[in-house]
Formats: sequence, structure tokens, C-alpha cells
Amino acid sequence: MRSFFLIFNAGSSSLKFALYENARPLKQVAGGSISGVGRERTRAVWEKIAPLTGPRGPAAVGHRIVHGGAKYSAPIRLDAKVTRDLHRLSATDPNHLPAALALIAEVRRKFPQTMQVACFDTHFHRTMPRAAYLFPLPRRYEKKGLRRYGFHGLSYEFLMEEIARLGKPAAQGRIILAHFGSGASLAAVRQGKCLDTSMGFTPAAGLPMGTRSGDLDPGLFSHLAVTEGMSAAAFQKMVNEKSGLLGLSGLSADMRTLLKAEAKNPRAADAVALFCYQARKWLGAYSAALGGLDTLVFAGGMGENSPAIRARVCSGLEFLGVRLARRANARNAPLISSRASRVAVRVIRTDEQLMIARSVARMARQRPA
Amino acid sequence: MRSFFLIFNAGSSSLKFALYENARPLKQVAGGSISGVGRERTRAVWEKIAPLTGPRGPAAVGHRIVHGGAKYSAPIRLDAKVTRDLHRLSATDPNHLPAALALIAEVRRKFPQTMQVACFDTHFHRTMPRAAYLFPLPRRYEKKGLRRYGFHGLSYEFLMEEIARLGKPAAQGRIILAHFGSGASLAAVRQGKCLDTSMGFTPAAGLPMGTRSGDLDPGLFSHLAVTEGMSAAAFQKMVNEKSGLLGLSGLSADMRTLLKAEAKNPRAADAVALFCYQARKWLGAYSAALGGLDTLVFAGGMGENSPAIRARVCSGLEFLGVRLARRANARNAPLISSRASRVAVRVIRTDEQLMIARSVARMARQRPA
Repeated sequence: MRSFFLIFNAGSSSLKFALYENARPLKQVAGGSISGVGRERTRAVWEKIAPLTGPRGPAAVGHRIVHGGAKYSAPIRLDAKVTRDLHRLSATDPNHLPAALALIAEVRRKFPQTMQVACFDTHFHRTMPRAAYLFPLPRRYEKKGLRRYGFHGLSYEFLMEEIARLGKPAAQGRIILAHFGSGASLAAVRQGKCLDTSMGFTPAAGLPMGTRSGDLDPGLFSHLAVTEGMSAAAFQKMVNEKSGLLGLSGLSADMRTLLKAEAKNPRAADAVALFCYQARKWLGAYSAALGGLDTLVFAGGMGENSPAIRARVCSGLEFLGVRLARRANARNAPLISSRASRVAVRVIRTDEQLMIARSVARMARQRPA
Repeated sequence: MRSFFLIFNAGSSSLKFALYENARPLKQVAGGSISGVGRERTRAVWEKIAPLTGPRGPAAVGHRIVHGGAKYSAPIRLDAKVTRDLHRLSATDPNHLPAALALIAEVRRKFPQTMQVACFDTHFHRTMPRAAYLFPLPRRYEKKGLRRYGFHGLSYEFLMEEIARLGKPAAQGRIILAHFGSGASLAAVRQGKCLDTSMGFTPAAGLPMGTRSGDLDPGLFSHLAVTEGMSAAAFQKMVNEKSGLLGLSGLSADMRTLLKAEAKNPRAADAVALFCYQARKWLGAYSAALGGLDTLVFAGGMGENSPAIRARVCSGLEFLGVRLARRANARNAPLISSRASRVAVRVIRTDEQLMIARSVARMARQRPA
């Protein structure tokens, strides 16, 4: 009998889902991205998959979970205990975890017998050395789990599997992975291992994003508390939902909108310029962490689809050996560096859902009948 | 009649003073670094300078002032209005401003007729482009003065004057200035203009320092507020006084102590490794900002006196063209790069007091008798 795995990816700006047939290789048979909130959007999913799975529903459901704290990193079955632990972590990541947990509860109500699996965005980064993951805070906080975890790991795992197909020299080289979506981060990888990443204990860290600020001067909060009576909750909301491209432009968190507006709107231009400049500096920083650069990969909505952003991020990086091929870049080709470029610059369409489906399939197949 | 200028530099870890004779060029006739607090330490200064200046005291007094907010950046006479404005800024920089303001008040009591001048650490950075100084926060904060100002500017001005003596090509090139003392920052300079700097609205930003954290994941504060009930004031104290090398090592904010301890103390080793690794990433980031690197300057206590730190910060930067000459580095020579190095790496003893004295002399000489 045919069986299916349903994968949910509750991102910061949308709910993606994909249905895979349990075959080798896994075969995607449905999928999409749904806006809206709560049960409305899941009803749309149930309607879409019912003709395929029948009333028994999927054999297993996989979820992208951004944060597993100090305790969880490898894919794990979502039993009552794991789910409870994740609820405790919710405050750490108000942009993702509460929505994912609501979804897990809803699936449990709809298909009480179905195994659910959590796949964590932190797993890829578990190889970081201490100098990359420790925070320069009083040491007692290390024991309390305050450290850099890093996110977008499912995307990075997928990108590394794609690079592995190019052969060993590429996969073992000095690689920067740039996942630039409405959430944006980078990872520095050498010999297949993650050495550093820009997001931190929370996904608000690193470079400026659609609505998140990225790393900040730590003195700002106290200044705002003293001068405006800003609360910790208001600060948290501001740096997660009202900052980054949206905050700077006062117009939009969407780079496409800002690129269209920048010629006439100086604030939109500021937001675009700031993102590209800060991203370029991260590329320089990670080249220093890696001792040079062999491969640069762009992925995520902006990374895969915006020639203008890629060109501006890479401009001035000739000293690193980065040279783009204008036409290849303009058509989002898989290889966008010129022949003269010492660094291979690639565009790879990432697929977090497929990474999750592979983990779910492995666990479902191991499970006693 | 001989006259004198007295210069105070109330740093984060000590009070430095220097007395210059009003001559061309200015001639330092006394100076020192004093620990202790409040009137104790100034009494030591008065005793030391009285035999030279006589009871009339100095002709003018200059102060290093870290932060001038949005309003002050060029050297300015400390009249009642300016002093009042600076008092309002104190919360922004609790490590420096309150001490400097107490000192100004004390000088006024001791020598009520003497002109006092403020020289700001922010002045050097006024040429930064918007993409470097804007914070990715809601835009209304730009109007409220929340932006990167940058500090250590008096040191950077001095270093640039020294580089200018080497000739125009060096001074007009792509330069990174690394002021690594108990406070540590970097500046990226091209064609003599500051393009970026690591400190921000407050001197707690940028790379990890003796006791300051540097830039942080903005989600940390809310997490600490929720899980530990941490107040804004406690957070401010933590990131300014209990973090950085001291926080990580649990031992000392002084790199000399940590280097001695690191072989037997893993926490000291973590602190050293983290500082060197993060500093190396900033060098990569600023090389990207500059489009490559011609000159790297180390200054400040650590930068001038620690061959081990310079070597570790520069290791792995061969891809940038940085190669140290081991022996020259070991003896803190003015030029520590090898002949094969594309980047000139220099050690320059910085002198913030002399920079201040030059401004004070200019203002005192312009003043109607």
C-alpha cells in the first residue's frame, strides 16, 4: 500500500508543506506555501492531501523546529516529553516556536496515532569550535545553555548534500553558505564541518534581516529602558518584528519591494545598501575564519532570485577572488562566477522540506510495525 | 613666561595625565597614570604639577571625552551649557562619562578661571557612510541620535598623523587601525577617511574586550529578563563590567594574566582564543569593507605590547596578504610584517594625550587675552 510523509515548515513569514510518497528516492506528490493563521491554513492542507492519503492520513509527519535548546539537536520523535520541553523554549524564539507547537498539537488532534518528528535547525552547527559558539558573558551562562546555536541548519545540510554531488574537492573546501531569505544567515564550513554561523542563541542575531535587527550594541537596551521606559518585551518585539529592512525603510521587509522603490525612496535605498554592506562584511569575516574562500553559495528567497542583491553583496570582493559572470548571475544560473574567479559562486535552490522528509523516512522505516 | 597645558585622559581602567609646555612643538614635561578614585588621584596630580606651573596652575586643561552624542564632535570649550549637555549623556557611557565629568568639576573648583576643553572620541568617525553608521532599527531612532558613533577616535587621529609621516601612498591606502587596550576597537580607513568602526552608540559594542561583551544577539536580554528577572540596569552592568575576557575566564580582564594562565586554565584559554578569533574576523570584515588591505596598525596596551596576541590575530590571514616577521613582531618593532607581506603591519605607540594637547593649544592660542 502506498504511504506518505507530510512535512511542515512553519517559517517566519509563511507555512510551507510538502507531501512525499514513501519511495526510494522520496517523491514529492503535493506541496505549497500557505498564508493565513491557525486552523484556516491547516484546513487547506488537509483538503489538499486527503485525496492522496485517504482518511488514515500520512504515515508520519515531520516538522522543522528552529530551536532545540541545549538538549535537542538530532531529529527526534515528538512524544509528550519532548513537546513539553519545547514549550519551555518558546520565549527564546517567539517568531517560530509557538506557531510550530500549535501545529504539532493540531496534527495530534487530527491524527492521534501518527508519529510526528522534529528536525532541528541547530543540528548542522554542532561542530562549531568553542571560540565560535561561546558568548563573551559571565561564564555561568554557558551552563545555562546561553551560547550560539545557529539556525537554518536544515537548509545548510541540504546545500552541503548538493555540493557533495560536485565531488570531494568542492565539498571539503572552504565554503560560505549564505541563506538569504526573510530570515538571513551565513555559515562557514570547512572539510564539511560548520565552523561558525551568524545566528546565535536566537534567530534575531547575525546580519540584519527582513524584520530582525541582527547583532546589536548591547548598550542600546539600557539606553531605551532609561530614556523611553522600554520594557524587555517591547525590546524583544522591536528587534524581532520591527527592525531590519522594515525598520530602516519604514516601507517593507521584502527586498523585492525595496529594490523597486530605492530610486525614489532614500529610506528604501538605505535599507538595501545596509543589508548588502553588512552581508559583504560577513563574507569577509568568514573568509578570515576559514583562511580564505573556495566556494560561496547563495540560497533562500533573496539568495536564489535576486541578481541585484548578489551582485551588490559581492562587489568589492575581488581581493577574495570573487568575480561574478554578469549574464549567469542575471539568470540565476547554478554557477554565477566567471572563469577568472578563484572562488566558485553558486546559486542552489534549497529544500528544507526534503531534508526533513529524509529524516522522517529513516525514522519511520526503522520503527517496529 | 612659561605656560602649560594639562591633559586628562580618564580611561576605563585608569586616569592618565600629561603636562605640556606651551611651545612649538608641544613639549611634555610631566605625566603618568594614576589608579585610585576621586580626589585622591587628582591630589597626586596637583602635587606633581605645582612645582612647574606654580599656584596659577595650567593655562588650559584638556579632557578626553568619549561621547558627545549627536551634538558634539569637534573639540569645544567646556562652558556651563556643554557640561550640562554631557551630564545628560552620562547613562550612555557609564564607564567613562561620569568620571570625566567629576574631574571637570574638580578642576573648576581648583582653578575657576582656567579654560577647559573637551576632545571627543567620536570626531574621527564623522565621515562614516550611512550603511556603516545606521542601526537596523525602526527609523524614528535615527532622529533620536541612536546610531553608531564610534570611539577611540583620538587614538585613531594620532595613528593617522603618524602614518601620514610615512608618505602619501600609505596614508591614502586601505588601512585598518586596531586599538586593542582594555577597551578594544577597530576602524577601517580609506583615503584618510574613516569608513567604519566597531564600537557603536556605546563603547560596549564591537569586539569582546577586557570586561565588555561587544555586539550581542539582541534576543539575549529578553531571555534573561524572562528567565532570571534581570533588569535593564543589571544587564547594562553585566555587559560593561562583567563580560568579555573577565566574564569568559572568570579570572582577569588583563590579557597578560590570561596568557600566563592559559596553559593550565581552560577558561583563560577560551578567553584568549575567543578574542583572537573574533578580532581576526573583524579584520576580514573590514578588508571586505575596504575592498582589500594595504596597512594594518596595532596600537593600545595589547596591540603595542603583545607579540603573542598580534601573531594569533593575524594567523590564517595569509589570503589577505598578511605575513608577520617573527623576530620583528617579538620585539614590538615599528614594522612587523615580512618582506613577502603584501600588507604592511605596523605597531604604533598611540598618544591620545598629545592629540588632545594639540587641540587645546590651538584653542588657547586663538583665545583673546
